[in-house]
Amino acid sequence: MKRRNFLTGAAAAGVAGAAASTFPAPAISQGKMQWIAVSAFGKAGLLGRALERYAAFVTSASGGRLTLKPYHSGELVSGYGQMEAVQSGTAQMGYGAPYYWAGLSDAVSFIAAMPFGLNAQEQNAWIYKGGGQEIADKVYKDLGTKFLAMGNTGNQMGGWYNKEIKTVKDLEGLKFRMPGLGGEILSTFGVNVVNLPGPQVQPALTSGAIDGTEWIGPVADMGFGLYKVCKYYYYPGWHEPATVLDGFFDIKAWEGLDSELKDILSTGAAAVNVELLSQFQALNNAAMAKLIGEHGVQVKNYGEELLTAIGGRAPEVMSARAGKNALAKETYNALVGFRKTMISWNGYSESAFAAARQYADFKEI
Amino acid sequence: MKRRNFLTGAAAAGVAGAAASTFPAPAISQGKMQWIAVSAFGKAGLLGRALERYAAFVTSASGGRLTLKPYHSGELVSGYGQMEAVQSGTAQMGYGAPYYWAGLSDAVSFIAAMPFGLNAQEQNAWIYKGGGQEIADKVYKDLGTKFLAMGNTGNQMGGWYNKEIKTVKDLEGLKFRMPGLGGEILSTFGVNVVNLPGPQVQPALTSGAIDGTEWIGPVADMGFGLYKVCKYYYYPGWHEPATVLDGFFDIKAWEGLDSELKDILSTGAAAVNVELLSQFQALNNAAMAKLIGEHGVQVKNYGEELLTAIGGRAPEVMSARAGKNALAKETYNALVGFRKTMISWNGYSESAFAAARQYADFKEI
Repeated sequence: MKRRNFLTGAAAAGVAGAAASTFPAPAISQGKMQWIAVSAFGKAGLLGRALERYAAFVTSASGGRLTLKPYHSGELVSGYGQMEAVQSGTAQMGYGAPYYWAGLSDAVSFIAAMPFGLNAQEQNAWIYKGGGQEIADKVYKDLGTKFLAMGNTGNQMGGWYNKEIKTVKDLEGLKFRMPGLGGEILSTFGVNVVNLPGPQVQPALTSGAIDGTEWIGPVADMGFGLYKVCKYYYYPGWHEPATVLDGFFDIKAWEGLDSELKDILSTGAAAVNVELLSQFQALNNAAMAKLIGEHGVQVKNYGEELLTAIGGRAPEVMSARAGKNALAKETYNALVGFRKTMISWNGYSESAFAAARQYADFKEI
Repeated sequence: MKRRNFLTGAAAAGVAGAAASTFPAPAISQGKMQWIAVSAFGKAGLLGRALERYAAFVTSASGGRLTLKPYHSGELVSGYGQMEAVQSGTAQMGYGAPYYWAGLSDAVSFIAAMPFGLNAQEQNAWIYKGGGQEIADKVYKDLGTKFLAMGNTGNQMGGWYNKEIKTVKDLEGLKFRMPGLGGEILSTFGVNVVNLPGPQVQPALTSGAIDGTEWIGPVADMGFGLYKVCKYYYYPGWHEPATVLDGFFDIKAWEGLDSELKDILSTGAAAVNVELLSQFQALNNAAMAKLIGEHGVQVKNYGEELLTAIGGRAPEVMSARAGKNALAKETYNALVGFRKTMISWNGYSESAFAAARQYADFKEI
């Protein structure tokens, strides 16, 4: 317990991952390992609770051979310091989203979400059965870690604006919070793109320092209170058609595991992956209805003019980013190739079915 | 090994699940349980290999406390005898698809797939976070078992025809293989609906005994060789927008497990669920391209006239089936209610995004 108290105290004093490399190594006694997992998310939300379930599963299924002890955002590491905490040996596992580590890798944002790219079902197909796991493993090995997909937000919403956006001209001079590749695309239209951490978003909207922000989707955005400061809620989330959450592990620690423990960590992560996507999917519509019905939010489609312009610009911006190094290029090309096959199959399956089911009008009996 | 040889011999002699209740009970020694898992699928296919992986995971993660020994279709139980094998105590686990047990339950087909109902992502949302697990548990408890979702085919294709189907009149007198609720709907249009087991399908098409059949989707159908006997391949798969595969367990055996073993079985099943869906999703498009390019298959949309007629009829047929008992009614009403919320959210998310991404034309660099 002493170490835990010490770490919590250190976190409270603002010691971030990179500065924490003098912390003691994980405990190993009688073949039992105790690993530290640091998360970019709060304890109480969907993602914090998912990490708690994962840690309990790993600890239980391994018969105590591997104990995972989660530290949520701010408990040991704050902000986006989780990758550096794992790299420095402070933690053996991190939990976040791949684009949080964009400052450390040109390739990693493509693993998180590709604007105008793949939806969640397609992203899982790429990772598990389309060569994506192998590419992500290369990208994360470059960061000294092993990658596991461990959650997906599903299709996000396009963001909140304090006024209507109808034409490309409306984008000029707009101050908008959108991290990642989506923000890079918007900036080419004269948008003043900023990237504020969560706690600063509402104050910045209230003061007029920014004109809008993207966040996640209805259920998360409602909890975050954005309807109080913006009334226009745009869709679709072209910038994040589905965002992967990542569980990542110190590569040396991972490679030291036997196949049974690797299997427990991988299987547990895949289960969290489908459960979190299911949770967002199940809860979003009720939240949307409440935002519209109770909070007076106006939901708007970006519309053809804006989507034509932004979608037309996306390949140029993203290929420039992908051209920065060989691994980013390999990742981008793999996604572009896989995306073509998914669009083709989507036309025969999900999209055609979504149109067909409108003909059936079911009622409870 | 003796028992295994005996069972294999019994299966070879045609002893099915229901007749096998005199087989020995599962072995329990020194706190280690050995369970028998009987599958409706062949060993070599995607589903057989998934069950092998699942059994290896459970055996390994439980540290040998619970060993699952899979018997694939024909090895111990043939046809659709898996549910009866579990009910009789011959096996402790079964693997199949819920509508295989339609003869034993009016509710269970709705768990498998609802014509014009939910796609795979929505079905998972219903099961894991929308109340579906609780309802499926009731339906399966009525059958003496515990339900876990353990795979999904994703959106299926609408089926193979030996001639074009353009109008409702073309359905009259057609001899078509379509099991389940979809077949019930087609029969109201004068289709002579038959349900042949797999091995009899190609011969029946060759002899003209049937005019067409639905099967699964491109990758499975290509392996099954249907393009050799039919040239018209219809979409979308309105009758099976996504079909759940079920892992089910003798309810008394399940309830006797400690929480750690239950968690291993549930978590492993969720991982198989997302991996199988990913596999179908990743492989279907290449198979479709080959069917069209190399095998001369003509892919056709059912079209507005047929979808309007069939979709319009679906609620009437399905509510009649659901009205047969309280549990079927509860299942149907829950699905109808959840479907409404999914159609609403799909309009803001997946469908809107599928339209938007057409504006971005990515090319490999």
